[in-house]
Amino acid sequence: MLRVIVVGMGPIGINSARAVLANRDMVLTGLVDLDPNKVGKTIDQIEGKGAAAGPKVVGSLAEAAKAGADVAILTTTSFFQRIAPTLRECMKLKLHVVSSCEEMSWPAFRSADLAKQIDAEAKAANVALLGTGVNPGFVMDFLPVVLSSMVNQVTSVKATRRVDASTRRQPLQAKVGATMTKEHFEGLAREGKIGHMGIGESVAMVAHGLGRTAKPEDVKITLQPVMAEREMPSLLGAIKPGQVCGMHNIAKWSGEGLSIDLDLIMAVGWKEPHDTIELGGPVPLKLTIPGSTPGDSATVASLVNLSRVMPRTTPGLKTMLDIPVGGAQGRAK
Amino acid sequence: MLRVIVVGMGPIGINSARAVLANRDMVLTGLVDLDPNKVGKTIDQIEGKGAAAGPKVVGSLAEAAKAGADVAILTTTSFFQRIAPTLRECMKLKLHVVSSCEEMSWPAFRSADLAKQIDAEAKAANVALLGTGVNPGFVMDFLPVVLSSMVNQVTSVKATRRVDASTRRQPLQAKVGATMTKEHFEGLAREGKIGHMGIGESVAMVAHGLGRTAKPEDVKITLQPVMAEREMPSLLGAIKPGQVCGMHNIAKWSGEGLSIDLDLIMAVGWKEPHDTIELGGPVPLKLTIPGSTPGDSATVASLVNLSRVMPRTTPGLKTMLDIPVGGAQGRAK
Repeated sequence: MLRVIVVGMGPIGINSARAVLANRDMVLTGLVDLDPNKVGKTIDQIEGKGAAAGPKVVGSLAEAAKAGADVAILTTTSFFQRIAPTLRECMKLKLHVVSSCEEMSWPAFRSADLAKQIDAEAKAANVALLGTGVNPGFVMDFLPVVLSSMVNQVTSVKATRRVDASTRRQPLQAKVGATMTKEHFEGLAREGKIGHMGIGESVAMVAHGLGRTAKPEDVKITLQPVMAEREMPSLLGAIKPGQVCGMHNIAKWSGEGLSIDLDLIMAVGWKEPHDTIELGGPVPLKLTIPGSTPGDSATVASLVNLSRVMPRTTPGLKTMLDIPVGGAQGRAK
Repeated sequence: MLRVIVVGMGPIGINSARAVLANRDMVLTGLVDLDPNKVGKTIDQIEGKGAAAGPKVVGSLAEAAKAGADVAILTTTSFFQRIAPTLRECMKLKLHVVSSCEEMSWPAFRSADLAKQIDAEAKAANVALLGTGVNPGFVMDFLPVVLSSMVNQVTSVKATRRVDASTRRQPLQAKVGATMTKEHFEGLAREGKIGHMGIGESVAMVAHGLGRTAKPEDVKITLQPVMAEREMPSLLGAIKPGQVCGMHNIAKWSGEGLSIDLDLIMAVGWKEPHDTIELGGPVPLKLTIPGSTPGDSATVASLVNLSRVMPRTTPGLKTMLDIPVGGAQGRAK
């Protein structure tokens, strides 16, 4: 039985804890959050569903780890610099880590020195640390590299993800700008306060997987609002024509005989959602996931499925390109 | 520079050697074949193209390895029992191995004891051995497990591969039965002398990747001819209506809350070729490769791309589920 602690009681953390509870090969031994309104509660109590089974939230990793644990699932922050102290706590407690921290999907992209330090510390502590998720972590980075293993040479990678945000939770709809004015969105975009996290990291992973190195200064990232052409319902209220219904995030890099073009739209009411990967080269190859990989449940699944891989990989700060695949070994209790 | 030897000068071996020669991060240090008609010749000479660059075929691995080598690509046999002596020669020479041997994609399926022995010997020799390819090795086994990492629980895996054999080399068209009578095909099928190799191994890999164990006696494999409904050209001459134009290979397993259904048609003139994976469960997920992954070039690509992974993985008899992904890092010289 894999003993798992979940840190961070937001929607992804809570659903990860539920998935751990539901799997017969895992046991949920601890929950951690700093919020005093959550400490002392079970996940059902946090969600107002009464006092169901499972551990209660405690305020520190050290306290949660007293019950014994192998892996910590961290869902606390999108930033590698900010998660580093938690990684160090985990290393002290000899816990492997799987995290939804977007920057941690390719930590060397923005924090090469810190990534090197953490890698050395993880090796010394004999634990493995991984950032993963659906995007970054799978659709626009890991999957293109997987597909590329079937061709000798690739000259271009185009990954297109089209998500209908109306099927997603409310914070995601807010994150993509639903109901904002164009000006409001563009102001937030200029300040870096809106937009998908991790598209630069995805570029770096694809480049590395294909034997190249994409430096941050050479990756061109753009962010534009998607404007509603008709009135649409959303979890933030009706979106009127002329208001923002979503975001369009593009990242491009080229060099060393390869171009990478990642193109993401997440918008309320987007028709024909899908994920598509196109590899150009002497033997072109294309792959499509009709409907697109469902974002929230896939992020949770990746955290839980990769948890099983950590104890059997070598120690260090790992990426999806360093470790064996983590299949859906979950079975209901 | 990765130093590579290729063993077995059939079409896959020759094209692997060409791919190694074309890649700037690899050097082809040796070629091996037992056929006295091939020994002493370059790959261009074998194919009647004159005396181009590259090493000449020698009759033994030991001789080829004298020039120095890190990895041997083996394309000699479909059977794990038959490749075992070659694996042992490679271990003696401290060579990592990547092979297109179909049974070696999941050697424990038919030869659990031998697989255990070879694994122990590889660990002692500190080299890694891998069986891979497009099918088995990717489309109907590895890729479904990769996709499953995005869902918590899977209750069914259906993988459908439809290949238009008219785009493939002549031996493949012969292998699928093109121009045979129905009776001839069925007779060969009863004797196990025709049909795709490795579909049982694919079932075993999917089951393992999803946390189950499929024993050979529980995997139901059927093989039927596909009959031509119209006259079609083939590399074996015209296929007449009522003659065999291809084969239909199905493997099924179910148990432990999971059903696996692998369904392969390779037929001359098959319309709308594709590879499709459908995962059933609480969150269904589907993936399609329109046109289907091109068989011959993808097998070669997988051998070459995975060669780069071998030196950085742990020693032993590995499967695609044990090692990091091998992206297309090839770059033309």
